[in-house]
Amino acid sequence: MSIITLTTDFGESDSYVGQMKGVILAINPRLQIVDVTHSIPPQDVLRAGAVVEEIARVYPADSIHVAVVDPGVGSDRTLIAAETAGQRFLAPDNGLLGPLFRRFPPVHVHRLTEDRFWRKPVCATFHGRDILAPVAAHWSRGADIADLGPAIAVNTLVKLPSDEPHWSDQAVIGRVEAIDAFGNLITNLRESDLPGGNRSVLLISLGCLRINGISRCYADHPNGKVLALVGSSGRLEIAVNGGSAAKALNFGPGSIVSVT
Amino acid sequence: MSIITLTTDFGESDSYVGQMKGVILAINPRLQIVDVTHSIPPQDVLRAGAVVEEIARVYPADSIHVAVVDPGVGSDRTLIAAETAGQRFLAPDNGLLGPLFRRFPPVHVHRLTEDRFWRKPVCATFHGRDILAPVAAHWSRGADIADLGPAIAVNTLVKLPSDEPHWSDQAVIGRVEAIDAFGNLITNLRESDLPGGNRSVLLISLGCLRINGISRCYADHPNGKVLALVGSSGRLEIAVNGGSAAKALNFGPGSIVSVT
Amino acid sequence: MSIITLTTDFGESDSYVGQMKGVILAINPRLQIVDVTHSIPPQDVLRAGAVVEEIARVYPADSIHVAVVDPGVGSDRTLIAAETAGQRFLAPDNGLLGPLFRRFPPVHVHRLTEDRFWRKPVCATFHGRDILAPVAAHWSRGADIADLGPAIAVNTLVKLPSDEPHWSDQAVIGRVEAIDAFGNLITNLRESDLPGGNRSVLLISLGCLRINGISRCYADHPNGKVLALVGSSGRLEIAVNGGSAAKALNFGPGSIVSVT
Repeated sequence: MSIITLTTDFGESDSYVGQMKGVILAINPRLQIVDVTHSIPPQDVLRAGAVVEEIARVYPADSIHVAVVDPGVGSDRTLIAAETAGQRFLAPDNGLLGPLFRRFPPVHVHRLTEDRFWRKPVCATFHGRDILAPVAAHWSRGADIADLGPAIAVNTLVKLPSDEPHWSDQAVIGRVEAIDAFGNLITNLRESDLPGGNRSVLLISLGCLRINGISRCYADHPNGKVLALVGSSGRLEIAVNGGSAAKALNFGPGSIVSVT
Repeated sequence: MSIITLTTDFGESDSYVGQMKGVILAINPRLQIVDVTHSIPPQDVLRAGAVVEEIARVYPADSIHVAVVDPGVGSDRTLIAAETAGQRFLAPDNGLLGPLFRRFPPVHVHRLTEDRFWRKPVCATFHGRDILAPVAAHWSRGADIADLGPAIAVNTLVKLPSDEPHWSDQAVIGRVEAIDAFGNLITNLRESDLPGGNRSVLLISLGCLRINGISRCYADHPNGKVLALVGSSGRLEIAVNGGSAAKALNFGPGSIVSVT
Repeated sequence: MSIITLTTDFGESDSYVGQMKGVILAINPRLQIVDVTHSIPPQDVLRAGAVVEEIARVYPADSIHVAVVDPGVGSDRTLIAAETAGQRFLAPDNGLLGPLFRRFPPVHVHRLTEDRFWRKPVCATFHGRDILAPVAAHWSRGADIADLGPAIAVNTLVKLPSDEPHWSDQAVIGRVEAIDAFGNLITNLRESDLPGGNRSVLLISLGCLRINGISRCYADHPNGKVLALVGSSGRLEIAVNGGSAAKALNFGPGSIVSVT
């Protein structure tokens, strides 16, 4: 039984997601459609890229992950299919798959050009329903990535201004990327970006806030304590035990974090 | 594998939707349940009707669409089953299916009276769980629409005060029906309602705002530009490229739109 | 086809739920995953417990219900598996399953200790993904509850300060437990807690508000009328017909309700 996951900024109040699912099921009714999230902030391509990278590691082999955050819908930006990490991906060529590709360099990337797999007529404002959904369904039924369109060189893909951390003399510097449902501040600093050795001597700075050391889990500390830890997706996060760091600290996406 | 879709105003914080799914799966575990949306504004029957009409065209034949926005639950309003456009529908007889029926006149409409398909005892405040869910599940397993209750004449169904557009001398006049997740203002004017011929000479008016011509897609324009286009559901919408028309323009559901 | 339901406070904006589903499907791709809700207020263990109890009655036999509201994740609190009411449950031992167990005393409760069923390495902050999800998937494939870890005596489970109603001389006293999507105030008073006999002579008090009698359904009353009724989950609720009691009355979770 094939799996198709959906990650979009379509929200959950409209029929957009329901329409995509209908198109998929009309082509292949025997699959699992998994909603990852439809609450990516509108047109936040980088946030969608982080989510896709986070889920890529846990799904069964050959799962198809469709990500649609697409400010350029209807323009001449292309749509792409990719294979990496034993998984399959469909998204606009707008940098969305960049975080994934930095971690898992793609084996194959193809442009979607074979319109025999598309829903006709293609609506200029809804390529998610008319191109990505039917292509995903046909791909799940056995089409080869090469059937979907010609290969494209990885170095010609659209790249967003890097949101990777950078290093200065003594510190690695990143930024808060998202606030999760618990109010934890999730950064773009990965475990591998942090200085090695004894983690209890690291100093984490966020504005004028200073946190000493990296904790193992929330429950190591009394309620109300501000702490830094490496969360479940392998990224540094700032939390308030038993509370919301976003509310308590007044930081949010874009805030600069440094680790010394 | 049968498909049952759900469109409700139950929200996603309570157990209501989870209870409906349990009742369905207890009768037929081998089907796909698709959440279309549970975020219809509370008791907004017309909005639910628009969503059901939007999804009806894309699902595989014989899919069952259950819509529950039901201010009259527990009163003597009836519940109905209908077949049209190759699809099956279950809803209260409160006008919800009106937009669908105007576009796809129903082939069969029956009242739900055969309580052998219901969950007992029927709770006066939750017909979604106790009548519509089990009827949908039994219908998906092979019951005929005539098994569910007696046929009812279409012209006796409840009709809401029409929200169809009307025509004055030079213009077609409609209204904003919803705001989508991107802040686009979705109107009740369909492509077929618009004057024919050259679309670039049409004038769209919304309060004192004037928009010249109908665009093909968002990306035709610079960011911040206000534009009108026919969206993916075939309705006229007002958008701000790269932004939210709802925030920028201060219009919302109920605002009058005219096209000259 | 097995069923696994998910009830969490993870929200729907992040990849947490999507990661849990991937882990489950990688172990057992042939099952139905049902989202009950991911919008439990953060760390509100009692609210999650009420939801789990509400759904337990309607699912097919042997369904597995996974509930993750877990302020103590990473501490030495244990995780448990339980069987009762013909259903299976997985949750932290933090009182979450208390409302269920008061209604349906558990037949078997076991601690999760057999780490061969876990995802390795176990992340200290995400036992939902690394322990509960894979254990649920293995359990659905035929593992016995005794395979998951040793039995534990029910009277040693963590109990929350009871939120059960209490009785004074003439009245039963409870509290508002939640506000649903319609603005109805859902209390912790069950039908069996209410005095017997003629319900139209009961007096329901909420602050200085007095409601005479318990209604059968919303539609018995004109719009705007404040009423009390036993809702679809068998609990007393306060509603405003055609409106939102939460907005109209300015009460919310924690408000005291008495019935005389």
